[in-house]
Amino acid sequence: MTQANLPHALPDDLIVNAADEVAIRQHLALVALGKRPADRSLTVGRLLDVNGRRWHGDQEIVISGRRIAWVGPAGAYPGEVAERVREPRLAAVPGFGEVHKHIESSHVTPEWEAALVIPHGNTWTCEASHEFSNVNGPRNLEFWLTARRAGSPMKIFPLPGSAVPPTAYEWGGGHFGYDEQRAFLASQMMVAGLDEVMDWPAVWNPENPSHERLWGMIRATFEARGVVEGHAAGMRAVDDINAFAAAGMASDHEAWTAEEVRDKLRRGLFMELRPHSLKDIVSGLLAEGQEDWSQFALCTDDRSASDTLKIGATDHNVRLAIEAGLSPEIAIQLVTINPARHMRLTPWVGSIAPGRFADMVLLDDVETLSIAKVWADGEEVAAGGKYLKPVPRIDWPDWATQTVNIARELTAADFAIPAAPERGTMQAAVLRPFHWTDEFITMELPVKDGKVQRDADRNVTKFAIVDRFSGEGKVAKMFWLGTGPRTPETALACSMGHDKHNIWAVGSSDAAMAQAVNALRQTQGGWALVREGRLAAIVRYEVGGLMTCRPPEELDAEMQALYKAAEGIDWMYEPTFSPRWWPGFPERLAFATLTCAPWRWVLVAPSPLAPEGFVNVATGQTHPIVW
Amino acid sequence: MTQANLPHALPDDLIVNAADEVAIRQHLALVALGKRPADRSLTVGRLLDVNGRRWHGDQEIVISGRRIAWVGPAGAYPGEVAERVREPRLAAVPGFGEVHKHIESSHVTPEWEAALVIPHGNTWTCEASHEFSNVNGPRNLEFWLTARRAGSPMKIFPLPGSAVPPTAYEWGGGHFGYDEQRAFLASQMMVAGLDEVMDWPAVWNPENPSHERLWGMIRATFEARGVVEGHAAGMRAVDDINAFAAAGMASDHEAWTAEEVRDKLRRGLFMELRPHSLKDIVSGLLAEGQEDWSQFALCTDDRSASDTLKIGATDHNVRLAIEAGLSPEIAIQLVTINPARHMRLTPWVGSIAPGRFADMVLLDDVETLSIAKVWADGEEVAAGGKYLKPVPRIDWPDWATQTVNIARELTAADFAIPAAPERGTMQAAVLRPFHWTDEFITMELPVKDGKVQRDADRNVTKFAIVDRFSGEGKVAKMFWLGTGPRTPETALACSMGHDKHNIWAVGSSDAAMAQAVNALRQTQGGWALVREGRLAAIVRYEVGGLMTCRPPEELDAEMQALYKAAEGIDWMYEPTFSPRWWPGFPERLAFATLTCAPWRWVLVAPSPLAPEGFVNVATGQTHPIVW
Repeated sequence: MTQANLPHALPDDLIVNAADEVAIRQHLALVALGKRPADRSLTVGRLLDVNGRRWHGDQEIVISGRRIAWVGPAGAYPGEVAERVREPRLAAVPGFGEVHKHIESSHVTPEWEAALVIPHGNTWTCEASHEFSNVNGPRNLEFWLTARRAGSPMKIFPLPGSAVPPTAYEWGGGHFGYDEQRAFLASQMMVAGLDEVMDWPAVWNPENPSHERLWGMIRATFEARGVVEGHAAGMRAVDDINAFAAAGMASDHEAWTAEEVRDKLRRGLFMELRPHSLKDIVSGLLAEGQEDWSQFALCTDDRSASDTLKIGATDHNVRLAIEAGLSPEIAIQLVTINPARHMRLTPWVGSIAPGRFADMVLLDDVETLSIAKVWADGEEVAAGGKYLKPVPRIDWPDWATQTVNIARELTAADFAIPAAPERGTMQAAVLRPFHWTDEFITMELPVKDGKVQRDADRNVTKFAIVDRFSGEGKVAKMFWLGTGPRTPETALACSMGHDKHNIWAVGSSDAAMAQAVNALRQTQGGWALVREGRLAAIVRYEVGGLMTCRPPEELDAEMQALYKAAEGIDWMYEPTFSPRWWPGFPERLAFATLTCAPWRWVLVAPSPLAPEGFVNVATGQTHPIVW
Repeated sequence: MTQANLPHALPDDLIVNAADEVAIRQHLALVALGKRPADRSLTVGRLLDVNGRRWHGDQEIVISGRRIAWVGPAGAYPGEVAERVREPRLAAVPGFGEVHKHIESSHVTPEWEAALVIPHGNTWTCEASHEFSNVNGPRNLEFWLTARRAGSPMKIFPLPGSAVPPTAYEWGGGHFGYDEQRAFLASQMMVAGLDEVMDWPAVWNPENPSHERLWGMIRATFEARGVVEGHAAGMRAVDDINAFAAAGMASDHEAWTAEEVRDKLRRGLFMELRPHSLKDIVSGLLAEGQEDWSQFALCTDDRSASDTLKIGATDHNVRLAIEAGLSPEIAIQLVTINPARHMRLTPWVGSIAPGRFADMVLLDDVETLSIAKVWADGEEVAAGGKYLKPVPRIDWPDWATQTVNIARELTAADFAIPAAPERGTMQAAVLRPFHWTDEFITMELPVKDGKVQRDADRNVTKFAIVDRFSGEGKVAKMFWLGTGPRTPETALACSMGHDKHNIWAVGSSDAAMAQAVNALRQTQGGWALVREGRLAAIVRYEVGGLMTCRPPEELDAEMQALYKAAEGIDWMYEPTFSPRWWPGFPERLAFATLTCAPWRWVLVAPSPLAPEGFVNVATGQTHPIVW
């Protein structure tokens, strides 16, 4: 063997693909045997084997390129090592993975997401890709892999979202069916499956107009041995859970109680726990005697950069699980081997083992999950909470930055709701945010100048969805209850409106609503707050109308300015079904535009199946907004 | 919805494929919701949820076709059920799965394997397909799916074996590389991956002539999101284990000690424990405090029908694990959810959950794993150890039954080893069975009539491999130590010779060896014993030269007759490296023809790279058999 003396032209090992895997692994095997030199090694005081849930003391991790070649007792590696790093006081655990996260909800592009979350230990993420996909579906994979191609150490495994479009009553920048999903899975090994099948009525009901599209995606995913992720929000009835599992869904991340988790877990759903419910679930299950956590993971789903800066990323979730009573070792498994195994990514991530990317979180205290340093791709990339790598500069092309396509200025008239002739009042269909009952609310509202009016005294304002894809700026509008400004000539608009991500606006005057939406035309997306007739705050999401490609801290400063400007406004409120709906600045309206189960009546942009935009997504029924 | 009144033309649901999955799961969801009637239900006293490792009392399993549609409290299912079965005294656990088994080693065809092992709870098997594949590679998938297509309730998930051929020094009925593996994975969803990469020198050593072929198979498996199964026999050095894992191997089933398991597990290898070592391993790990068994499974690998009739199938393995100290619930996970998850088959097998095949093992005592009944495909198929279904009659075609292709009668001359002229003795290369050292043994042997002679006094006899694929009946032969008959004119031959499955013969005379091999030409495979010049016993493996398509009991009777006939023979013996090499009838010679690591010097049929058949498979070196 003269291998050790040959030059080795190895792939850059950024995007996982089968041809490169062969070259990389052939090389790693020779490095492990000591027949080729290693680039670096890291010696740690102890190391957690998450496969067996056991600690091993005084361990050396030998690295070649971005991968681990050898792990074992310090000093026992037989080959040459160019550089040795020693951290005898630190404990190494695998880089944390997110089993289900919308990076769009961080509102920073992937290269900045890496800078934001890697200091918190999160080195790989299964991207639940239906936000940007709904803006530009065809560029879905290209978007998610661009930062990695530019050298970012964050491994993003995109799962194309089923909700493109979310329902058959919506349309726009993306349309995924059998052909698209098949092509995604065939073109990139990093695509792990199909993300969150969330339009449950379309899954079970053969008459639903999205039935065939959705099952086409499921079929393509089965064919390619991908994972079919579920989303069973509000689903607690045993019959529904059974039907959901029977339909082939592999997971759920929407459970709220220990009982719901138990009911879903035993029907074979891998349980992905989110922070707002995980403590109750974990402590509840522990109290029941739950010992086996192998079918569980922790996930973030949605978290803004501002919140991450405040509370942390994946590490926050792990700490919550430890606080709820899980051992640190099990809690760490829930963000390492468990999600990797569920997503069939164990050859690349999830454990500190040969062949995997050399991503390690170095703890100075295990019980509190105190993170001293983070390694990714075989080098130290964060220390003391700071990201150490340069963030690659990506000039995002027009397909990413020109996504608010409204070819005209909007005016107050676009938001007016005309009354029938000669009527002094009209009946109006009214929704609350997170209104999950079968029937909409009906109210009698005053008419003035031939238009149906808001009624601030009864907590009624106007809500609109403005299409940002066709160029025409079609507007759907109706009256909503218990949200939006009572302050006159005030409106809030945002280009993030889950999951179709048209622009939504809520306001005390039609003119203010038009002004806020027009501001977003200029910025190509983000938040716009008009206060008493003047533009009071802007947050720029210039990429896809969902994210910025600026530092998270800069975005956070804009958000803080928005919160500040919103403080003096009198925000309507009333409680609703969601436990995550609070008084004050209605930031969560961006999630009140969801159309998946358990939603029924919703407002969407005008579409062929719902010309006024008001539709029951569970039944397809439409209804006038006033009559 | 009028679905419940429509006729439903559903797929037969025998072979899993994506198009059928869609139709079946769309239907199952409606059954779960009570919108379509169910075929049958089974109510049990309690049911083990292997996802959470928890028992649930008084449970009903609602079935449609071959699948589970709904599971929950007895009586709570909302729909119609045509037939209700009640087993209030029994406990239901999922049908047992084999994560790694060569059904060929049962020596019965798959329809008879079902009859043999289903009464023992084994309803699904990942077939490690390199035995029949080495006989007829192109028909590999067709062979394994034929019984299922004929209605057999056993679910066989074939993993094409990497060892086709086992090494570059062998050839014959199959040759699998990138193209073949890619086609297998593309053509059948039931193909879970690549089975046991066992030619370790070919994996790590770029100069090995099988290197490219093997990596081609690995590449095709990565591309199709399949599992790359490993085989790390005798691999205990930490560097080798690291290199093996770095190369992308996902598992090992060859470990013997707790220490070896710990070393492999922590490098990310899923550990598949075999019965002959599992008690030591399990009790050893338990003594060390091992609590997490989620990366473990139990497997049978090879077990003859005769042994299964004696000791059981998968159930035997589970009982051993329980005896070694594992809780019955964990032991059951090791043959249900764990192997299903590892093989990415959870949507179909591994738990009693909606969407899965309705395969349940009903226990009347959990602690002793006492099996009262077995359900498969939604109906009772075994009770009290008896198989209740008719075994489908399959007329295996010529490609399966005409596989001993030797176009001529062999004679004593084929087995003679000529001496150099004028020599009274010759040096001979000698092997023991399971001779795993770097060097072969050298002995000086007598010459008579120009031929080198056996030396029974020194425990030396002759061993041969006869090619059964080319038609020419090429013979490789040499002297072996410590095996074979000392009794004159006696020989044993068999067409099962792992893993290439040429015919091997061992005998005290060349004529007896020829006679035994000629007998196998007639029967198209099996065992032939010639005793003192007369054919004393025949066992017929008429399918592939490896299996019979007759009842296991009939095969066992032939085997017992063979053992009986072999009793009076004086069998040479001496210990060797393998703990599984015993005195007496040398049945395990069929495994002494293996050529994977840790073997070095082996005898194979004459091939271009090893014209005499004597080759070091770790280095490619050849050597004369006498000089």
